[in-house]
Amino acid sequence: MAVITKKSPLAPARFPNMLPVAGVEFATVATNSRYKERDDLLLVKLAEGTRVAGVFTRSRTPSAPVDWCRDQLSRTEDPRARALVINAGNANAFTGRAGRETTQAVARAVAKAFDCEPGEVFQASTGVIGVPLPATVITDHLEALAANLNPKAWDRAAEAIRTTDTFAKGACEIARIDGHPVVIGGIAKGSGMIAPDMATMLAFLFTNAALPPGVLHDILVDATDRSFNCITVDSDTSTSDTVLAFATGQNAKHDAVTSADDGRLAEFRDKFLKVMQDLAHQVVKDGEGATKFVTIRVTGAEDDRAARRIGLSIANSPLVKTAIAGEDANWGRIVMAVGKSGEAADRDKLVISIGGQPVTRDGMVRPDYDEAEATEHLKGQDIHITVDVGVGSGSATVWTCDLTHDYIAINADYRS
Amino acid sequence: MAVITKKSPLAPARFPNMLPVAGVEFATVATNSRYKERDDLLLVKLAEGTRVAGVFTRSRTPSAPVDWCRDQLSRTEDPRARALVINAGNANAFTGRAGRETTQAVARAVAKAFDCEPGEVFQASTGVIGVPLPATVITDHLEALAANLNPKAWDRAAEAIRTTDTFAKGACEIARIDGHPVVIGGIAKGSGMIAPDMATMLAFLFTNAALPPGVLHDILVDATDRSFNCITVDSDTSTSDTVLAFATGQNAKHDAVTSADDGRLAEFRDKFLKVMQDLAHQVVKDGEGATKFVTIRVTGAEDDRAARRIGLSIANSPLVKTAIAGEDANWGRIVMAVGKSGEAADRDKLVISIGGQPVTRDGMVRPDYDEAEATEHLKGQDIHITVDVGVGSGSATVWTCDLTHDYIAINADYRS
Repeated sequence: MAVITKKSPLAPARFPNMLPVAGVEFATVATNSRYKERDDLLLVKLAEGTRVAGVFTRSRTPSAPVDWCRDQLSRTEDPRARALVINAGNANAFTGRAGRETTQAVARAVAKAFDCEPGEVFQASTGVIGVPLPATVITDHLEALAANLNPKAWDRAAEAIRTTDTFAKGACEIARIDGHPVVIGGIAKGSGMIAPDMATMLAFLFTNAALPPGVLHDILVDATDRSFNCITVDSDTSTSDTVLAFATGQNAKHDAVTSADDGRLAEFRDKFLKVMQDLAHQVVKDGEGATKFVTIRVTGAEDDRAARRIGLSIANSPLVKTAIAGEDANWGRIVMAVGKSGEAADRDKLVISIGGQPVTRDGMVRPDYDEAEATEHLKGQDIHITVDVGVGSGSATVWTCDLTHDYIAINADYRS
Repeated sequence: MAVITKKSPLAPARFPNMLPVAGVEFATVATNSRYKERDDLLLVKLAEGTRVAGVFTRSRTPSAPVDWCRDQLSRTEDPRARALVINAGNANAFTGRAGRETTQAVARAVAKAFDCEPGEVFQASTGVIGVPLPATVITDHLEALAANLNPKAWDRAAEAIRTTDTFAKGACEIARIDGHPVVIGGIAKGSGMIAPDMATMLAFLFTNAALPPGVLHDILVDATDRSFNCITVDSDTSTSDTVLAFATGQNAKHDAVTSADDGRLAEFRDKFLKVMQDLAHQVVKDGEGATKFVTIRVTGAEDDRAARRIGLSIANSPLVKTAIAGEDANWGRIVMAVGKSGEAADRDKLVISIGGQPVTRDGMVRPDYDEAEATEHLKGQDIHITVDVGVGSGSATVWTCDLTHDYIAINADYRS
């Protein structure tokens, strides 16, 4: 489907070692619908009592599975999940009534096969928009999936949900609550159409901690805001973005918690954020055509929100991204991008640094600025840009990649 | 400087025939500073009594000449101009105090050479950001410029202000006021970093109509909103965008006008808008790497402003722009771009058309949609997309180009 299938040069050396999460089992299968000879359907079976929370695209034209998940989460104060189904190749987006009927039929069939309620079946679809997705693409394989469940198959799960991704994305941490360890594991897919808020990106987090849905929701929203909502590949936002978190409560030895702000959850929240940021960074590192991973730190803004907007204005600028691709220390384009963000910035106090070296002072380039040093930094894979805009104390960090010929090659004939 | 210098395939066959505007004379010269062996400095001499109005970038980090022009326009209720100086190759942006001193020195020297006030000298600079621009790059050539004035040299004027532009841009119309003809002529430059509001784009309009500055200002703001603020190449906004309009009043036989809403100005306003739209379209047609000119018409939005935002969301989407480059009728990406605009849209009433053929109905693709026909349309150079979002009566038209390999090639090593 995609022209370029070579692995991103920014890919990790290998898929990480992932621990099983009690109460979570994976099964994958090849539907041979859009993709041939690769698994493209994932089913995750979840233990009874699993709580679920979700964050979704802000698109005004969301996919049918996004509508479905939102409906299940809003139906009750205590949403539960027993199964998660994800297919790759067809987003079931902009498919009208047929799309809604597919999500309903899938939920019914999975509920029957796994002995739960249809409302406990969560779904996500990723791939081409506007092509009807027959329910049978999924339901025909439920028997095979049920026979195939494995709590260790993280890698196959992460492989199955890929579209233009060039590598499978997973991350895992152990956190202690009341001194008792719980596992947090996650998988994600995404490589293009990545932007706030949450673009063609799917991420699924699993933990065996016992967390009420409200607590899980608060932790998820906060971590999303500091991970997936701080990355951008091409500024486009998909109709399908979904982050779902599942807490099985299996083998959880800690006492009950009732608030995300409970100090006993501090380490859990840190590790949960770490998993989400790790997955978000992997998505950027798989940005279509990416050759460089760019960290942009903005300080001195009016507030944190303004800082993030300035950071994203830099991170989304095609001119900044092509300059980085060309290893050209064209900091003037960073000035431009700060200026166009619309947020307050003091041109004459602006301090831009590239690779730790300050470039500007008093509204102009520093006399001691060493462009050769900045260029040397840009020749690396891990680019650091910091910008202090000189008006307040707001700060934010955002992550992006460069914009290269391969982005065009991949996207100019995705459907061909 | 730019890697690719071949003329845009969308360029007009030739520079248009342009009539002289009474009271306007052009002179150009090669400064041999950044560019070699081509004229890169333009001086326009304006008759005594010429009124001026301007619209500028909304960047928070504007260039020194933008600051200078804004200051001159806000200094008085009745701003007048006697000269306009434009250099290409150096934007005099983010050049600190030295940048301000250059604009002051240039104004003083031009005022002396052409016997006017420094505040009557308007300026614009375009090119690289962050490199000091010595005033002498301009002032050393004033004598040569003064010896070289010519009311017919529109083509040389338009050539001299180019940077990465692959062709010179001009447009001319005749309008009648009270039955008496006046000329409206304009030149522009711009090819990358083009976005609302008004990105790396310079345009200069000249007329011999006799218009008070307030009337000229109102006409200019309205026409800018429906021309340069409706185009986008890459969503980036420059520090230097400037549109200046000059009304010399020379040989103007019409009676005095005091309001832009005066019905006697109807034809003038139409023709003024026509010149501005013609120039704006030429800028898009010279979009870096552009091979297709794309007109996006949005209807059924909550209001005209929402329609323009939806149109620009489509026009700025890298995924839409690469699909057009690849002649791929990937209308799902248009659905995505409508969704991400944040403006109200009814997914299930959305009607997208490509080349006049309706693609969608009832939230899905039409059964009779003929993709081969849409693909055929996309093989042309002149692409038409219409979108009705089904919620109101707001409408807007925006223009953009496709996103190709050459955009990357041009921008990945602009400074090299």
